[in-house]
Amino acid sequence: MKALLILLLAFLAVAGNVYAQQHASSFKVIPLGVKGGLDEGNLSAYMLAVEGTEQYVCLDAGTVYDGIQKAVDNGLFKQPAIAVLKNSIKGYLISHPHLDHVAGLIMNSPADTAKNIYGTTATINALQKHYFSWESWANFGDAGEKPMLKKYHYVTLGPQVSTALGNTGMSVKAFTLSHSTPYESTAFLINSSENYLLYLGDTGADTVEHSTNLNVLWQAVSPLIKAGQLKAIFIEVSFDNEQPEKLLFGHLTPRLLMSEMSRLAGLCAVENLQKVPVVITHVKPSERGDALIRQELQNENNLRLKLVFPKQAELLQF
Amino acid sequence: MKALLILLLAFLAVAGNVYAQQHASSFKVIPLGVKGGLDEGNLSAYMLAVEGTEQYVCLDAGTVYDGIQKAVDNGLFKQPAIAVLKNSIKGYLISHPHLDHVAGLIMNSPADTAKNIYGTTATINALQKHYFSWESWANFGDAGEKPMLKKYHYVTLGPQVSTALGNTGMSVKAFTLSHSTPYESTAFLINSSENYLLYLGDTGADTVEHSTNLNVLWQAVSPLIKAGQLKAIFIEVSFDNEQPEKLLFGHLTPRLLMSEMSRLAGLCAVENLQKVPVVITHVKPSERGDALIRQELQNENNLRLKLVFPKQAELLQF
Repeated sequence: MKALLILLLAFLAVAGNVYAQQHASSFKVIPLGVKGGLDEGNLSAYMLAVEGTEQYVCLDAGTVYDGIQKAVDNGLFKQPAIAVLKNSIKGYLISHPHLDHVAGLIMNSPADTAKNIYGTTATINALQKHYFSWESWANFGDAGEKPMLKKYHYVTLGPQVSTALGNTGMSVKAFTLSHSTPYESTAFLINSSENYLLYLGDTGADTVEHSTNLNVLWQAVSPLIKAGQLKAIFIEVSFDNEQPEKLLFGHLTPRLLMSEMSRLAGLCAVENLQKVPVVITHVKPSERGDALIRQELQNENNLRLKLVFPKQAELLQF
Repeated sequence: MKALLILLLAFLAVAGNVYAQQHASSFKVIPLGVKGGLDEGNLSAYMLAVEGTEQYVCLDAGTVYDGIQKAVDNGLFKQPAIAVLKNSIKGYLISHPHLDHVAGLIMNSPADTAKNIYGTTATINALQKHYFSWESWANFGDAGEKPMLKKYHYVTLGPQVSTALGNTGMSVKAFTLSHSTPYESTAFLINSSENYLLYLGDTGADTVEHSTNLNVLWQAVSPLIKAGQLKAIFIEVSFDNEQPEKLLFGHLTPRLLMSEMSRLAGLCAVENLQKVPVVITHVKPSERGDALIRQELQNENNLRLKLVFPKQAELLQF
């Protein structure tokens, strides 16, 4: 009986190990802010690193310090918040220049260390023109209005060109998104060895935006989904289904998200898409209540996707 | 004996009433954010109303929603945060266009109601050019880039001209401040019947800025201090005394504040200035610790001023 028990424990240990290896996470994400408006201390920003490393990039930067401080309070970092800001974030990827995606980067710049800011030409031009412009903030960049303090080096991302993310073991490809035509936003496809993670900035649906941008993106990532290499999709749902189409301002609703996911499932097969966690970002606080969006997403989840609702300063692993 | 007790109680009641009338507060202030950087959920913004009313102006607007939510949590408002934003704030006074003084206003604009934004020509121009500019945010103003959504009406404040603050029973005079020459900031002298409150945006010391702006302001308010009509001074101390002069960027230290207060005391007599609460704003979080600034202020308070250290969402009455 005792021998049987030992054998059983040994089997469980081996099986557990095999399971852990098969399901070892590739990326870790610490959301510094998850909301799409109003709450200044909780706006879009996601620290992303290869699992087992402490070299993060920050995907958008709406809220930085406040999120780091809460992550420190939650035990995710052992250093003080300012040290995490300085040492653990190696660069910023900015999807578009709306204030709720850049405010934390701008306002933390005096305390920050030298690092790269990655974005499309349009994003980097707007950062120089509107934020690091002396009238609104000291110019901590290495381009734009003089004098330039040159703490941040701008790295322009060409469309769908792979660019190394310095000191992180990751690289990125940028895809254009429509965010209330003619304004654009960006999706970042992050790569580390055989693993990928997709982060979309604000985006409207192709049908509403009269665009093919999401279709192009779905075509590009569907082979990765089929191959089991895409570990997560971060995508926005800003408004509930009651929001009139003409007041969407380049954003998605639960219905529009599910319609886009159906198109993606059509390219990669639904059983493959079901394995990819879909992380819902940028929910806008509203008088109808944030919970409504979550409810609508669950009601309309006929594809049985793995929906994830991120929380500020709570670790995600993919 | 019983008659004596009743007489004593009656005397105390009358005396208490007289004291309350003499010391009845004129203004109430709810700090929505008190810090001078980093912490995105706690940046300069102060709701101000005449005591007994609920018609506030917001002095600067670094953090708005997050501060209102905390004030609701503290029982200062009975309505939900969005309703307070919409109904209780009747206008915004912006001292200068640096992001940590306007981020809350910009980001809350989609949920806000129609109201006035008050500022100098330089401030209003920068709001139009850099924030409500479509590239960085939808234009909710009634001037600047087209299309204009016209939720906010800009009211330009001429130097030292009295301007009514609509629907609040208050008026304002603006005074120019130096904030790292050539950049300017503004002091607001708020008036309601015989009572005044002075709020300074970011400012350097006249000696460091090679300016006479603070001298002009002290000359203007010293008669009000002598007359007991100035109920409070809100003034910044961003850095501790160790900060090198060339890295002050148009801000004050405890030593520089006390030097300016000595000049003011010279104009109005120190015993009059001692009656005016001096509210310390815009302390920048630093690795040396925010407590250091407080300690230095207390150490250098030879004038024995009534220093007040505001806390987010905690009511002040003057």
